[in-house]
Amino acid sequence: MSEERRNQEAIAQSCRVRLARNYADVPFPSRMSEAQGQEIIERTARALEDEGLTLRRMADLSRNARGVLVEEHLISPELSAREGGAVLLSPDRTVAVMIGEEDHLRVQAMLPGLRVREAMALADRIDRAVERTERFAFDREWGYLTACPTNAGTGLRASVMLHLPGLAMLQRTGEVIRAVAQLGLTVRGLYGEGSEASGDLYQLSNEITLGRTEEEILKLVSDTAEQVMGSERAAREMLLQQGRVKLEDTLMRSYGIFRQARLMTTKEFMARLSNVRLAADLGFVDIEPALLDKLQRDVQPATLERNAGRRLSQEERDEMRAEIIRRALA
Amino acid sequence: MSEERRNQEAIAQSCRVRLARNYADVPFPSRMSEAQGQEIIERTARALEDEGLTLRRMADLSRNARGVLVEEHLISPELSAREGGAVLLSPDRTVAVMIGEEDHLRVQAMLPGLRVREAMALADRIDRAVERTERFAFDREWGYLTACPTNAGTGLRASVMLHLPGLAMLQRTGEVIRAVAQLGLTVRGLYGEGSEASGDLYQLSNEITLGRTEEEILKLVSDTAEQVMGSERAAREMLLQQGRVKLEDTLMRSYGIFRQARLMTTKEFMARLSNVRLAADLGFVDIEPALLDKLQRDVQPATLERNAGRRLSQEERDEMRAEIIRRALA
Repeated sequence: MSEERRNQEAIAQSCRVRLARNYADVPFPSRMSEAQGQEIIERTARALEDEGLTLRRMADLSRNARGVLVEEHLISPELSAREGGAVLLSPDRTVAVMIGEEDHLRVQAMLPGLRVREAMALADRIDRAVERTERFAFDREWGYLTACPTNAGTGLRASVMLHLPGLAMLQRTGEVIRAVAQLGLTVRGLYGEGSEASGDLYQLSNEITLGRTEEEILKLVSDTAEQVMGSERAAREMLLQQGRVKLEDTLMRSYGIFRQARLMTTKEFMARLSNVRLAADLGFVDIEPALLDKLQRDVQPATLERNAGRRLSQEERDEMRAEIIRRALA
Repeated sequence: MSEERRNQEAIAQSCRVRLARNYADVPFPSRMSEAQGQEIIERTARALEDEGLTLRRMADLSRNARGVLVEEHLISPELSAREGGAVLLSPDRTVAVMIGEEDHLRVQAMLPGLRVREAMALADRIDRAVERTERFAFDREWGYLTACPTNAGTGLRASVMLHLPGLAMLQRTGEVIRAVAQLGLTVRGLYGEGSEASGDLYQLSNEITLGRTEEEILKLVSDTAEQVMGSERAAREMLLQQGRVKLEDTLMRSYGIFRQARLMTTKEFMARLSNVRLAADLGFVDIEPALLDKLQRDVQPATLERNAGRRLSQEERDEMRAEIIRRALA
């Protein structure tokens, strides 16, 4: 990995592009019949049969298997609750097409780092492949029609997951969020709308999908992300100037606890992970960011239960989580 | 080291015997002249010249060198402040004869573990050696006469340093201290009278020196220490029963922080050291108790400054302390 990309990914953990699409000849999911729900799954799978995607129907998946897909951000909690829903997944998990969620299709492409245009190209390829044999609901004035009008137009939502521990330590996160909101963008904590930022992870995305071109949206999200990343870099620099040893002490204590704890809640995990990520970014400890990303997935509740092969109590999960962390960092 | 002795030392860290003695023909230190102060140093050194002890006069020692002796519990803070005082030290530091403190002589012998009779034998040997050529102030009815009447009679104070983290966690320390007080014994925190127990270390010693034989005092201190050690063992057993993983988590987090912290105050050090000692005693981590004893001495302020070769600010000490801990446990 080049030094530059690594530095970039240290703040922009991942990015995502999502296209909302609906078939022209089928009512929106909230109004379609069960049979129509099955029909759109089959039509989509057929249209994309050369793309190497795997179909997973919610009805065929256990509660746990759905939970794992939610934790991996491949499907939404809403889709996981719809018995008639399905998802098409690429082998490398960079593409996930949700079928029968709020809209007929939600084409999603995810990549590490700030690579929204590359992600757009992946989503666009899927979109075009479906359009070769199918016709989407489209209005010359309104663009793509969607179940909720806030998604109409391009149907495009581009987002970037930003790790902002420096701004958080300097208590400047609120200020940055307000500035970003003025540009028509939204910033949310890791676990969706309204939630507190867990692990200092913030998702930056466009609020408006209508009246702008796809390129304008991608540029706005990407440029704004770059600006926020610049503020985060400045915050880290300031913290180092203010007291390198104090900062190193704070961060490395979290690493020390990760190496030795026997019980770890999700909440504590996310807070300490943020510290360990920053310690790695600043070169205090030699850990590949990819290892921490994998760790973050591996310790989520449903993923833990899948690997254990059974339901786990809260305390069992906390104990298993601590063990996985110790092994990963050993 | 035998398993049994190691187990015993895990709770009884060290023991100490102290004999208070005064020359019959010189006034007590509070009333003697400077010349008499020099005289008792010379007479004592001469009487003990075959014992292989080294004489250190306070006037010849830097402020720092005196501080190190205090931290190693070889001299009292009171002696370190007396320009006319001195100490005779054995090469292995098990014997320290303070000269010109509250009494003319304070003969001290210190050993690891609960070995008060062995310590008594060491002190006794010094006492007899002086008595071969000198005469101590002694009254048939009152026994040895001392500056403060509470030390008269045998002049003997026997003490044991006990590590009681299990009782502390179960909040039973107060109860044990009250029971011990009823037997005419005192329990103090590590840093002398009235202070809070630092690192869950408690010094058990006899209050009464008069009206009992030396053997009675040694037996009382030793038997009571054994009883308290039994309570501590039961407390540890109970904590393991109540939740081994929770206990291991608490203790090992302190070890993890020791391995990674960049700043460490004395107060935090003592609290975490107590946890790490217990973790080692319970076999959660493989660390020799002697290594932790050495660490405890090495991170004291005056010892840090001696090793640095200069005065240090509080923050410099905290940083150096953290570094020494990391190296010791690496």
